[in-house]
Amino acid sequence: MFLIYINNPCIAALAAENTIAVQSAVKQEKQVSSKSTPTDLVTEADHQVEELIISTLREKYPSHTPVDYNLRFIGEESSAAGVKCELRDDPTWIIDPIDGTCNFVHSFPMVAVSIGFAVKKELELGVIYHCFDGTLYTARKGHGAFCNGVRLQVSKEKDVSKALILTEIAHLLMEVRISPLTRSVRIIGSSTLALCHIASGAAEAYYQYGLHCWDIAAAAVIIREAGGYVIDTTGGPLDLMSRRVVAAGTRQIADYVVKQLQPINYGRDDLT
Amino acid sequence: MFLIYINNPCIAALAAENTIAVQSAVKQEKQVSSKSTPTDLVTEADHQVEELIISTLREKYPSHTPVDYNLRFIGEESSAAGVKCELRDDPTWIIDPIDGTCNFVHSFPMVAVSIGFAVKKELELGVIYHCFDGTLYTARKGHGAFCNGVRLQVSKEKDVSKALILTEIAHLLMEVRISPLTRSVRIIGSSTLALCHIASGAAEAYYQYGLHCWDIAAAAVIIREAGGYVIDTTGGPLDLMSRRVVAAGTRQIADYVVKQLQPINYGRDDLT
Repeated sequence: MFLIYINNPCIAALAAENTIAVQSAVKQEKQVSSKSTPTDLVTEADHQVEELIISTLREKYPSHTPVDYNLRFIGEESSAAGVKCELRDDPTWIIDPIDGTCNFVHSFPMVAVSIGFAVKKELELGVIYHCFDGTLYTARKGHGAFCNGVRLQVSKEKDVSKALILTEIAHLLMEVRISPLTRSVRIIGSSTLALCHIASGAAEAYYQYGLHCWDIAAAAVIIREAGGYVIDTTGGPLDLMSRRVVAAGTRQIADYVVKQLQPINYGRDDLT
Repeated sequence: MFLIYINNPCIAALAAENTIAVQSAVKQEKQVSSKSTPTDLVTEADHQVEELIISTLREKYPSHTPVDYNLRFIGEESSAAGVKCELRDDPTWIIDPIDGTCNFVHSFPMVAVSIGFAVKKELELGVIYHCFDGTLYTARKGHGAFCNGVRLQVSKEKDVSKALILTEIAHLLMEVRISPLTRSVRIIGSSTLALCHIASGAAEAYYQYGLHCWDIAAAAVIIREAGGYVIDTTGGPLDLMSRRVVAAGTRQIADYVVKQLQPINYGRDDLT
């Protein structure tokens, strides 16, 4: 009965199409407001993209509303605006117009559009589009998952000691004095790319104990040439071999980070 | 005196050229061994890429070794192999052949080659190449920093409450029972992309309290169609409105994560 939704290959193009608005918005000055908390950001683009996705879905699937069902939408921004968020048996599109709004605001290149589809509370379709690198993940229940058309396969690792764990539980970091006052924290697993994000203005500061000179060397030039600061965790000049660094776009942010840090001694690169 | 190194624009191409080996290696089965600790990984590719970079630099810059200076290299893998790591006045290339080796092993798309150059202990050149998306960051002291040829500019934000902070201090997470036994933790700021990394096999598990149905809906189909598990944090079936999820490639990893979690109640999406 619902094959009309499930079989339509336009769902992938739909996500991409709608994402164009996101991509162009990325290059604009963002109109930012807060939702429930100061760090729960929402932009004009969130609203625009959600409206665009919903109107496009309504237009492309006019037969979507059989008499015995009500076509339904659950969207992050609609819900924030007070629309009741409830999963029923009705065919329901579940939309996050911009996942990673804080990243989006910072042009931190981890932003996605997410569109799911459920019927009788069963999830049937999934499309996620990585707005910065164009990666498109798609899946239809019973028909496999794909990334840009290539079949996906999860890791078959069973040994916990070899498992890489992803999480976003930033409240774990709340004990660190640096976290509560700042907007958010990311851990991306590459200190050089993290430092590149300081250079590009995608993030304000980076601090680290225990890294090595090869982690800092190239990036220090890049950040400085982009107008930023690369200094010691004490606030003094960078000591390339000291295995510690603070990098920031402004001296103010750098000084704030320096003040919050508790020293950790990893020795030096040049003392082995 | 050292303009020959600084002016040569081939440095960017050099990084990219050498990175081809990394990119092709990404698609192969990796030969992994441990360095100092079980989580300090090194692969055959690390050694190969470092050797390739050093031999290419030696070949392209034969005049690099004036009589009064010794051309020097500081490389992550050479240092691990016992080569003394010491910054002197001599012109010195400082190389991280694969930054993010753990990511590389997992094909987690955050891996970079980093090549810096110092003279008289002053950093003069920096090149960082993002192996997965082809982003090339370059800078020469006094001449600006660029990303794929576009001038970089750091964020001018001075308000700490609007600052996005990057860090890698995973030891902060050690208090969480889930962390010590696993390989590493990432916080990437996008739950849907994090979940996509489970689908593609780039990571083994993802858990989260406080997210919403629009964060889970599309990804749940994608992960399942890729052969993975998307379940409740109690170990039971996923409840899409429950604002909590565990996703994993294998049931064993999923069960491990479930056992470690301490419940956090964020309410439900469908109860407002």
